[in-house]
Amino acid sequence: MTQTRPSARQPDQMRPVSFERHYTRHAEGSVLVSFGHTRVLCTASVDDRSPPWLRGTGEGWVTAEYSMLPRATHTRSAREVVKGAPGGRTHEIQRLIGRALRAVVDRRALGERQIILDCDVLQADGGTRTAAITGAYVALVDATRKMLKNKMIAKDPIHGQVAAVSVGIWKSIPVLDLDYAEDSDCETDMNVVLNDGMGFIELQGTAEGHAFRQDELDVMLTLARKGATELHAAQREALSRD
Amino acid sequence: MTQTRPSARQPDQMRPVSFERHYTRHAEGSVLVSFGHTRVLCTASVDDRSPPWLRGTGEGWVTAEYSMLPRATHTRSAREVVKGAPGGRTHEIQRLIGRALRAVVDRRALGERQIILDCDVLQADGGTRTAAITGAYVALVDATRKMLKNKMIAKDPIHGQVAAVSVGIWKSIPVLDLDYAEDSDCETDMNVVLNDGMGFIELQGTAEGHAFRQDELDVMLTLARKGATELHAAQREALSRD
Amino acid sequence: MTQTRPSARQPDQMRPVSFERHYTRHAEGSVLVSFGHTRVLCTASVDDRSPPWLRGTGEGWVTAEYSMLPRATHTRSAREVVKGAPGGRTHEIQRLIGRALRAVVDRRALGERQIILDCDVLQADGGTRTAAITGAYVALVDATRKMLKNKMIAKDPIHGQVAAVSVGIWKSIPVLDLDYAEDSDCETDMNVVLNDGMGFIELQGTAEGHAFRQDELDVMLTLARKGATELHAAQREALSRD
Amino acid sequence: MTQTRPSARQPDQMRPVSFERHYTRHAEGSVLVSFGHTRVLCTASVDDRSPPWLRGTGEGWVTAEYSMLPRATHTRSAREVVKGAPGGRTHEIQRLIGRALRAVVDRRALGERQIILDCDVLQADGGTRTAAITGAYVALVDATRKMLKNKMIAKDPIHGQVAAVSVGIWKSIPVLDLDYAEDSDCETDMNVVLNDGMGFIELQGTAEGHAFRQDELDVMLTLARKGATELHAAQREALSRD
Amino acid sequence: MTQTRPSARQPDQMRPVSFERHYTRHAEGSVLVSFGHTRVLCTASVDDRSPPWLRGTGEGWVTAEYSMLPRATHTRSAREVVKGAPGGRTHEIQRLIGRALRAVVDRRALGERQIILDCDVLQADGGTRTAAITGAYVALVDATRKMLKNKMIAKDPIHGQVAAVSVGIWKSIPVLDLDYAEDSDCETDMNVVLNDGMGFIELQGTAEGHAFRQDELDVMLTLARKGATELHAAQREALSRD
Amino acid sequence: MTQTRPSARQPDQMRPVSFERHYTRHAEGSVLVSFGHTRVLCTASVDDRSPPWLRGTGEGWVTAEYSMLPRATHTRSAREVVKGAPGGRTHEIQRLIGRALRAVVDRRALGERQIILDCDVLQADGGTRTAAITGAYVALVDATRKMLKNKMIAKDPIHGQVAAVSVGIWKSIPVLDLDYAEDSDCETDMNVVLNDGMGFIELQGTAEGHAFRQDELDVMLTLARKGATELHAAQREALSRD
Repeated sequence: MTQTRPSARQPDQMRPVSFERHYTRHAEGSVLVSFGHTRVLCTASVDDRSPPWLRGTGEGWVTAEYSMLPRATHTRSAREVVKGAPGGRTHEIQRLIGRALRAVVDRRALGERQIILDCDVLQADGGTRTAAITGAYVALVDATRKMLKNKMIAKDPIHGQVAAVSVGIWKSIPVLDLDYAEDSDCETDMNVVLNDGMGFIELQGTAEGHAFRQDELDVMLTLARKGATELHAAQREALSRD
Repeated sequence: MTQTRPSARQPDQMRPVSFERHYTRHAEGSVLVSFGHTRVLCTASVDDRSPPWLRGTGEGWVTAEYSMLPRATHTRSAREVVKGAPGGRTHEIQRLIGRALRAVVDRRALGERQIILDCDVLQADGGTRTAAITGAYVALVDATRKMLKNKMIAKDPIHGQVAAVSVGIWKSIPVLDLDYAEDSDCETDMNVVLNDGMGFIELQGTAEGHAFRQDELDVMLTLARKGATELHAAQREALSRD
Repeated sequence: MTQTRPSARQPDQMRPVSFERHYTRHAEGSVLVSFGHTRVLCTASVDDRSPPWLRGTGEGWVTAEYSMLPRATHTRSAREVVKGAPGGRTHEIQRLIGRALRAVVDRRALGERQIILDCDVLQADGGTRTAAITGAYVALVDATRKMLKNKMIAKDPIHGQVAAVSVGIWKSIPVLDLDYAEDSDCETDMNVVLNDGMGFIELQGTAEGHAFRQDELDVMLTLARKGATELHAAQREALSRD
Repeated sequence: MTQTRPSARQPDQMRPVSFERHYTRHAEGSVLVSFGHTRVLCTASVDDRSPPWLRGTGEGWVTAEYSMLPRATHTRSAREVVKGAPGGRTHEIQRLIGRALRAVVDRRALGERQIILDCDVLQADGGTRTAAITGAYVALVDATRKMLKNKMIAKDPIHGQVAAVSVGIWKSIPVLDLDYAEDSDCETDMNVVLNDGMGFIELQGTAEGHAFRQDELDVMLTLARKGATELHAAQREALSRD
Repeated sequence: MTQTRPSARQPDQMRPVSFERHYTRHAEGSVLVSFGHTRVLCTASVDDRSPPWLRGTGEGWVTAEYSMLPRATHTRSAREVVKGAPGGRTHEIQRLIGRALRAVVDRRALGERQIILDCDVLQADGGTRTAAITGAYVALVDATRKMLKNKMIAKDPIHGQVAAVSVGIWKSIPVLDLDYAEDSDCETDMNVVLNDGMGFIELQGTAEGHAFRQDELDVMLTLARKGATELHAAQREALSRD
Repeated sequence: MTQTRPSARQPDQMRPVSFERHYTRHAEGSVLVSFGHTRVLCTASVDDRSPPWLRGTGEGWVTAEYSMLPRATHTRSAREVVKGAPGGRTHEIQRLIGRALRAVVDRRALGERQIILDCDVLQADGGTRTAAITGAYVALVDATRKMLKNKMIAKDPIHGQVAAVSVGIWKSIPVLDLDYAEDSDCETDMNVVLNDGMGFIELQGTAEGHAFRQDELDVMLTLARKGATELHAAQREALSRD
């Protein structure tokens, strides 16, 4: 008999997802994204200076920074500034967010500018990086709309839609969108970044317990496509308002 | 003729103040405090280990950390972790918050524990340190109530109430609770931390333009007392709910 | 007509692979692994102290550190110590190596010890992380053999075999084991860590150009299995000598 | 009956104050200031480059750095360089010194130059920051006199006089100029920076024990004015020599 | 009766010395130097930018960096990047290597370029700094030959030959070229850098046990000249090949 | 005809040397040493904890830290704390001072304690490291006298006398005790640490211009012995007072 997920969800059921746009006043894009109890504030800031290695190329850049507030988690974690440098996990996640978002941006249309996506986790319950990518996309679109409106750029630099979701194998059951309780106890954990043509932008799977087989991979990727399709729809719905 | 404040407030009028308790799930105390557009998330985390220099004394400690999200401000500021260490302003503010809150805590009643007050500015519009102190007080009370309820401590360690407010001289007018526009343009800026007996816990005044006189100081302190009285009432009201 | 790879290899052809065991004298395991011109010195050091979080659990740990000599590359890169901290790429790679090797280790059989795998790239020509994982496995086996011989441990802690290989899509052709010239110019790049049961331990794919489709993924994973099979055979051959 | 201060001074009595000008050879201004046993070497260095944010504005800058020699204190303190960064207290003090001195400088008359005030405590016995401000003023005047003499500047940029003094409440007695023994044991500690028109430039009061009342504040400020008047006279006397 | 050295060598006998040129592919000069079991990879990298302080002078620079792989030694040492900064010993050695090599370089003939000598110890058995200097000379010559061949420079900038050797007093016997066992147990340790005219470029002697006398110094310097003569011959032989 | 030294001294003439003992109040030993215009404050602090690697051995340690005040020099140098870490030169000098002083200390007689010698340069005019060693010796003796008097130790741990002096070749003339003007312009610079039996404790010679010959070395060492003899006498004289 199959076990019930701690969250009581069906194996292929996402947590409730919401986007609160214009969450803060100053950023060009500012979105509070929630995947269940996971809440990430994603802001998009337009910077007139592109990074040094792009000067004179006519191309822009999109980069991301990721951080958790100290008490976003069950027990308080020390601020990274106190330790003097971002840890390995932080580096890995912000590099992933940056790559994912650059995959849908025409960097030439941006001009020599940089958009910085700050993803700050206010509350963590698993899936912070997938929520961050999914929310940062909405913040990025808001920022580019503002740039178009202000005639800062002439052409929409966003040429696709991107969302991310986690899948895994929990107690031998392939499941979609793991929360913290499930993630702590799963055998395989995979983060999948998909565009709206169901093309893979990034695939990162790790066997925590036993190595996973090709057939398990296939089931997980089917779940990931289902989740991403729902997230793409939710993003479009959020962006259609106001 | 007197000039009108950018915020159109009366010289002795505070911005709307609100406290959203239980803003996040994991912290023992978690309060989103707003002073107008300034919004600071204050969490209180109970740590079973007191700092090394208090081991064996039977006394506890209360400390604070303060940070701004990169895009809390009009233009994005680099994260301090990227620079490798907190800046001077951050150190100054978090030391101030810690001192202010310790002034109303019976550290012996805490036992050998530490309460860490994290004050993270989500949106800045002037007065972030006064909002942080005022909000951290509410988070601290929530945390100590939980400790009492859980029998972690036997006696309420909070023996007073504390709030902070800024006053200043703007275009020769003494004003209460400066927002960013007023603060950028004022001649004197003073942060006042007051307990509910109207005793001064901390007084920090800086002449930005001309040096201020004793009579100007007296008017500013009268305004500060008015503001603190309102803040103390708002704290009590917030803490009386649920 | 299909294009020829810069290396003139067939799409499914690995570079020549070799393992030089006992390359240095002091380490418990010391292997110079070559994947073509890529040369990585992998040493395994046994440390009697396990990491703090494992004290008292009876379990050991396997961790990895990765670095490039400054002139391993075409142009010299600054040492990370000069910048003050390892960069994001270094963190990502050393975390990957550690996870990959831990997947084949019975940490209880190690006892409360740590094995540190240092992977230092002497010469880089693409695929340094896959060479590092593949070579570190051989160094790890040498170290555990020495521990068994010295009666430091009673039971062989290695319960599987692990190797890593890169696959990618270069000019629309799925190819195996990308060298630097191919990697710089490919559309998709995937690192696959496989055990000797052809189970996936880690899968990390990134679309550099267009997003990749499920059918492209399938072809790449078939190539990865072919490469890993050859690497596992080469590891066994190397370990059968002496 | 009133208690006697550890220093056997009257409540309103300063320690002996002295200024040794031209204490070292190389700096444009170099003053060893003593407040009793507290001895601070204050040097003023003229730097032809103003800070980046002032380039092109025609204005100069005055900044301060503060440090204690490791054995300036009763027990040796580790050098801050060993810890990697200046601590919070150091930041706070050097920011205070800089603000205090800028309050009497016409930054336009300086031109695009920077004067750096280094305040290094050779021996500490309480009141190092007030001694530093008071001594740095003398070093600053010496440096600007040299600039005028060398025709580097045409107009005297010093438009006022500044000195700092501590006041506090020790065993319920308001006292002037606390030494280390008194400071360690006082209920309220306040640093006051005053110009020669008795205007407040900075006011920083902290209740260490009970919160202080308005009437206590008033007495302390009266003491501060007395002390500052004496310090201004001593500065003028020192600057009238040679 | 005289004691036998741990290495069974005569007091005036060097360890076998060898130079493996072109050890790696990318560097302009790349030499693996061995002094017995001590093996150091020395690469010379040509950088088109000279250091800031030489811009506009027409002169170039030669600098060195030195590092040990973590397991070059009997027990593993932590990477310096993990500690955040190179240690004192590293600084001292790389400054020594740089000075020694600059002594035989016509910096004007280099033009405004920098040659960086990276000396990475793969295996340590005493004398790593003397091996590094001796090997770096060969790498430097290879790099300047390539620059001459490529017409990057018109005139050979190398105007002398340099080698380094250690001497010491072990169990009262003056000995040449100490290995690790001898170095750990010696009374005096001296590193001598000599040019091919037997002129001293650097002399660094330290009494570990008793202070050494003038007559002991004289014997040690005679040994050093013998060793350096052999090293100069070996360098010339290596550079005469290919 | 021979040239006259910038200081107008004879080639074998030292600058005036003085020791001001008890220069500051708190340290167990505190000496302001002057070699002409070079002034270094040397304090000796007794620390009850020996370094970790000596715990349980019954032996103590002597270590040194060296720093320059920012404006000890002609132009201001940035504080090392601002750069985040001590530079290579600082490391080299403080390691040298520590080794020199340990050479005359019976570490067993110290017990498991550490004496920290802080050498802070108030004013620099060449020879700061030789002045530091020579002055630190006097501070160290003062500290051990206090330890003997307080019965902290039973036996005098100082078993010799140590002083340091620089020699060099300036305009082809061997000279003693170089000041800044001479040092900046010399061909060879050598620091010699000698005990009172004229044994060498440390010898560090660097050819800045041409390599130096054995006969030049011999003359320089004769000068060094003359200088050290005078310094030893001056130390004894200073220590005989009070």
